[in-house]
Amino acid sequence: MKILNVAIVGGTHGNELTGAYLVRRWSAYPDAIIRPSFKTKLFLANPKAVEQNRRFIDEDLNRCFRMNSLASTDRGTYESLRALYLNQMIGPKGASKHDAIFDLHTSTSNCGVMLVLKDNNLINRQLAAYIQCQIPDTKILYTPPIQGDQPYLTSICPYGLIVEIGPVPQGLLRSDLITLTDEVVKHGLDYLHALNEGRQKAVPDSVEVFEFKEEVMFPKADDAIVGTIHHSLQDRDYEALHHGDPMFECLDGSVIAYEKQETVYPVFINEAAYYYKNVAMSLCLKKTLLTATGLEPT
Amino acid sequence: MKILNVAIVGGTHGNELTGAYLVRRWSAYPDAIIRPSFKTKLFLANPKAVEQNRRFIDEDLNRCFRMNSLASTDRGTYESLRALYLNQMIGPKGASKHDAIFDLHTSTSNCGVMLVLKDNNLINRQLAAYIQCQIPDTKILYTPPIQGDQPYLTSICPYGLIVEIGPVPQGLLRSDLITLTDEVVKHGLDYLHALNEGRQKAVPDSVEVFEFKEEVMFPKADDAIVGTIHHSLQDRDYEALHHGDPMFECLDGSVIAYEKQETVYPVFINEAAYYYKNVAMSLCLKKTLLTATGLEPT
Repeated sequence: MKILNVAIVGGTHGNELTGAYLVRRWSAYPDAIIRPSFKTKLFLANPKAVEQNRRFIDEDLNRCFRMNSLASTDRGTYESLRALYLNQMIGPKGASKHDAIFDLHTSTSNCGVMLVLKDNNLINRQLAAYIQCQIPDTKILYTPPIQGDQPYLTSICPYGLIVEIGPVPQGLLRSDLITLTDEVVKHGLDYLHALNEGRQKAVPDSVEVFEFKEEVMFPKADDAIVGTIHHSLQDRDYEALHHGDPMFECLDGSVIAYEKQETVYPVFINEAAYYYKNVAMSLCLKKTLLTATGLEPT
Repeated sequence: MKILNVAIVGGTHGNELTGAYLVRRWSAYPDAIIRPSFKTKLFLANPKAVEQNRRFIDEDLNRCFRMNSLASTDRGTYESLRALYLNQMIGPKGASKHDAIFDLHTSTSNCGVMLVLKDNNLINRQLAAYIQCQIPDTKILYTPPIQGDQPYLTSICPYGLIVEIGPVPQGLLRSDLITLTDEVVKHGLDYLHALNEGRQKAVPDSVEVFEFKEEVMFPKADDAIVGTIHHSLQDRDYEALHHGDPMFECLDGSVIAYEKQETVYPVFINEAAYYYKNVAMSLCLKKTLLTATGLEPT
């Protein structure tokens, strides 16, 4: 297996400015992303949304890459057209020109460096494990595919990661998080280059991942939010949430607690981008994925 | 002088959710804002922008309250109509039914609790000084009027403050900052009530304020931002910026330093709401305002 082409994508969500800024920087000063053993190409995924500083124009671009969405040419939204274009340039999905994608995002949650595995193959696991070794506080989120297909941009290629960095508000640039994103991509490209060269980077035999389980909605009444993330849970992404722990504090002063017995680990706590869907956080289970070479994907 | 009516306004900017949430909470549970010596009324200033989670629909509502703007009924923007409505309900400016306004905002800058004095009269200075005594890290920003008139909502009434609390991203609710905003308003109402009762709250003889001097623009090329706030300046609101201190780091790796000799104090550093105007920060001078009763406004 040899990696021949790598795509780096920024601006998939137009108000997450870090990726779009790095695409501009690397276009002007490409040294940071050049590796001798493969070609790297830059893409600004949603230029109109970036220009308007909005997550999307008509629909979330990062949900437009299911096979059946890509097969339909008459949906007519701006993002569906961008998805066809990107699939043509990077893909086509299933037989893509590019072997790997790094899709650069930001979050208002206290996610730090979060690598999102949408495909759980061994290369992806090792890639994430290697970056985690280089940037020790890095967390790995794994979202198992639903019915075998994924709607995400990264699903065009067999390999790659969604990079989520935060906390940062939408619509602004923080130089510290730009530096951190740059570093994640550098390590990712280093890993793939070493793999090509047959001198694979050392990774541990297994990694801890947060496996997505379910979303939790905000309490609402008359279509308005009537409870906020409890102050004791705010910014506590990846920490254990036990039965009885407070989740929300409500207008009337009451507290809504976590009711299930199973201990979970919330992520994307108070992500501004999910308010329109009423999503307050996602709950995960902690799992271990094997990363030793020679093993089959679990 | 007696305060008879006080207006509390949230949602002047539709994606600064704290004020709108508190207006909803206080409408349902008004005990927190009731004082025996005056009436308190709640206003959701820009409901359509709140609903759409945008700063404004057509133009910034908090720039629509100059006398000549209010005199013109044919500007036709949604915000100009809201301004006329609010001026009718709270004002009219110059002869207003309400004596004081608290206008509740948030900022993505590291502003903490910032009280913005748009009118520098003695009551406003004492009101800000009293709140600062109760919440010690509170900062006071003073923006001198331009040509004797102000475009801000608070200018409808003789007294009142703009309350800016941060850092918080646009489009989300943080319970800690909701609590802090609630506390600021509580102390403000307490101060006005005590004044009415003839047992004025003690305040120091003077307060330190940050007086607005000028805005600083982001470096741009081909209509795109080519430099971000320097990492050493990010989050350093209110701290001294000296000749030669770094302000921006650019795409090409160069640094833009502060060039003037006069020491200044930046505020609203990296405020997402000002990106569309290309404003990176505001520079202030440090001044002392007298607050002792019996003094004329300086």
